[in-house]
Amino acid sequence: MNHNNVCQMLGIEIPVFGFSHCRNVVSEITRAGGMGCLGTAYYTPEQLEIELSWIDEQVGSKPYSINMLLPQKFETVGEPLSFDKLPQAHVAWQKKLLDDAGIPHLPESERDRLLNDELAQMHLTPEFADELLEVVLRHPNIKMVVSALGSPPRHILDRLHAHGIKVGAMTGKVQHALKHKEAGLDILIAQGSEAAGHTGVVSSMVLWPEVVDAVAPIPVLAAGGIGRGRHMAAAFALGAQGIWCGSIWHGTRESDLTDEMKQLLYKARSEDAVQTRSKTGKPGRMLRSKYTEAWVQPDAPATLPMPWQNVLNAEARLRIDRARALDYMTCPVGQIVGTINNESSVRQVIQDILEEFVTTVEQMPLATGLENA
Amino acid sequence: MNHNNVCQMLGIEIPVFGFSHCRNVVSEITRAGGMGCLGTAYYTPEQLEIELSWIDEQVGSKPYSINMLLPQKFETVGEPLSFDKLPQAHVAWQKKLLDDAGIPHLPESERDRLLNDELAQMHLTPEFADELLEVVLRHPNIKMVVSALGSPPRHILDRLHAHGIKVGAMTGKVQHALKHKEAGLDILIAQGSEAAGHTGVVSSMVLWPEVVDAVAPIPVLAAGGIGRGRHMAAAFALGAQGIWCGSIWHGTRESDLTDEMKQLLYKARSEDAVQTRSKTGKPGRMLRSKYTEAWVQPDAPATLPMPWQNVLNAEARLRIDRARALDYMTCPVGQIVGTINNESSVRQVIQDILEEFVTTVEQMPLATGLENA
Repeated sequence: MNHNNVCQMLGIEIPVFGFSHCRNVVSEITRAGGMGCLGTAYYTPEQLEIELSWIDEQVGSKPYSINMLLPQKFETVGEPLSFDKLPQAHVAWQKKLLDDAGIPHLPESERDRLLNDELAQMHLTPEFADELLEVVLRHPNIKMVVSALGSPPRHILDRLHAHGIKVGAMTGKVQHALKHKEAGLDILIAQGSEAAGHTGVVSSMVLWPEVVDAVAPIPVLAAGGIGRGRHMAAAFALGAQGIWCGSIWHGTRESDLTDEMKQLLYKARSEDAVQTRSKTGKPGRMLRSKYTEAWVQPDAPATLPMPWQNVLNAEARLRIDRARALDYMTCPVGQIVGTINNESSVRQVIQDILEEFVTTVEQMPLATGLENA
Repeated sequence: MNHNNVCQMLGIEIPVFGFSHCRNVVSEITRAGGMGCLGTAYYTPEQLEIELSWIDEQVGSKPYSINMLLPQKFETVGEPLSFDKLPQAHVAWQKKLLDDAGIPHLPESERDRLLNDELAQMHLTPEFADELLEVVLRHPNIKMVVSALGSPPRHILDRLHAHGIKVGAMTGKVQHALKHKEAGLDILIAQGSEAAGHTGVVSSMVLWPEVVDAVAPIPVLAAGGIGRGRHMAAAFALGAQGIWCGSIWHGTRESDLTDEMKQLLYKARSEDAVQTRSKTGKPGRMLRSKYTEAWVQPDAPATLPMPWQNVLNAEARLRIDRARALDYMTCPVGQIVGTINNESSVRQVIQDILEEFVTTVEQMPLATGLENA
């Protein structure tokens, strides 16, 4: 596959990109010849340095990538956060929900520390982003930085380019893709609405070829709903030059999700990955749980705007996870969850994808009836 | 393409299926070598006879198909309907919405007749379905009947089979597909959430291969988000044996949509095909309009359950369409609407799809880098 444009641009062997918050997953994808991408949204510069150094050690000279929040406008995300500013009716409704379910409170002795740790992770300022960038530039194996929040500011783009780093961005809409093209980005990840977390509303089938045509000749990676070789073949048929997977790694032994959460994912069907505002206030796809369902009942308050819903649910999440309250546990996951049915490994997932991909592509002329037409 | 399984099963030349309520579209798809499928939800037996006879004349000996409501349980759809039973608060809210927009009332002299015509179209009983079936069986060019409401009752399935008619059903969920398989259906149409009208929540990318694997060796047609050859190639990559398109015909000169509606569709983007409960009470994908938007504003009442929401909006639809109130006009359409940008013809749409399909399939090994690997 080394004649693939994207492979040549980034110096990788196979056009398989994998997003994860888990460094083991990122390094294994990279070691397998693809490109792992570490999600760094909630890292301090010190934590990021530790993670990147660890990955460097695993991957030798192989290139990898990271996903960063590089917002054009910091004022919208820099608002000082505090639990005291939450609407009390929301706090009370959520508390009653968990109390009624018999989910224990956080121990008084640890509560303040735990909650403040959560708040610290939601902190983002321009200075902070600059510090993170300094860390990134000290790790020369990083060959791509992907912006999770629109096109990065010009000075950051220039700085990354000066270091030989390609810059990409997620997009769920043709209009945004055109802005990324105008901003001078090198690669786009078109993510359909079936993906995990925040997405646009347009599905992969419709979105990918639209974005491919709109930004040509900029290469496009296909994201959203991908976990098999058939999906990879479809991605190429639709004009993408590589695939970008996130949820499919949740089922691997390298994933740092808890065993309880993995078991829930193995059992889930595609339709159990639901769009919910209960985590961040914006619609994001997550595993259906009694917590996500509670937020769409008639008695539920309206979810809070970003980032306040995140602040609100921090305590709920801590309580649920500590209590291992299976019915209430959730995590971001795409509709591909229905395909994740038992534990695998990153290597196995990639091997399975490539094998089915090659078979599918080779059989296409026959399958379509073209060969004998 | 005559070695394609589905083409052999149904005696057609190309595995392109087209659903439409418009007989001109159905006959043109059929004449082009595909299989048109007439949506018959709102026909009386007399009307159906007229439509089918007209199609027969156009298509010569070519086979075509129809889509029917063949519910297992009629009591759920046989409830007597009446405008008087609508909640008055809903009627008043909707009236104010249109009055405030300056959309004229229906002329008093015609109002009762127009509304009663609407009600008559929503009428469905077992006897009525049997009469429709008798009409169908008098038209031997009909080689497939597609059930729009679950698996058809056993006696209807047997009757159709005895006449050499294949029976298919729409499905948006693996669990439903398995029920169709068990019921003895011949072909399934897996329809992703990007499609027009009522759908499941699972997108085409995820749904198609799931259904293909679940019901093999029953052939699966891919529906939802298809309007180009790239989509057709993706459908085959994902294991489907044909494509089923609905919305793409809206932009053709054969479509009986009004010119105003066609112009709205040409301008619309993919994300303008929104899920709304405002038409039937169940989520269905339609063109965003001030009417669909009004129903999700904070002051809007909850939509009524099926079929009452349909009864409620009948008058609104009549008022809006008669007034040619562009901002309030809507119609069922899938996300492929973003690809429909100017008037075409059924022949041209099919030719474009096939040309891009053949090119895509032929270039796949090179595009993926496999050829030089």
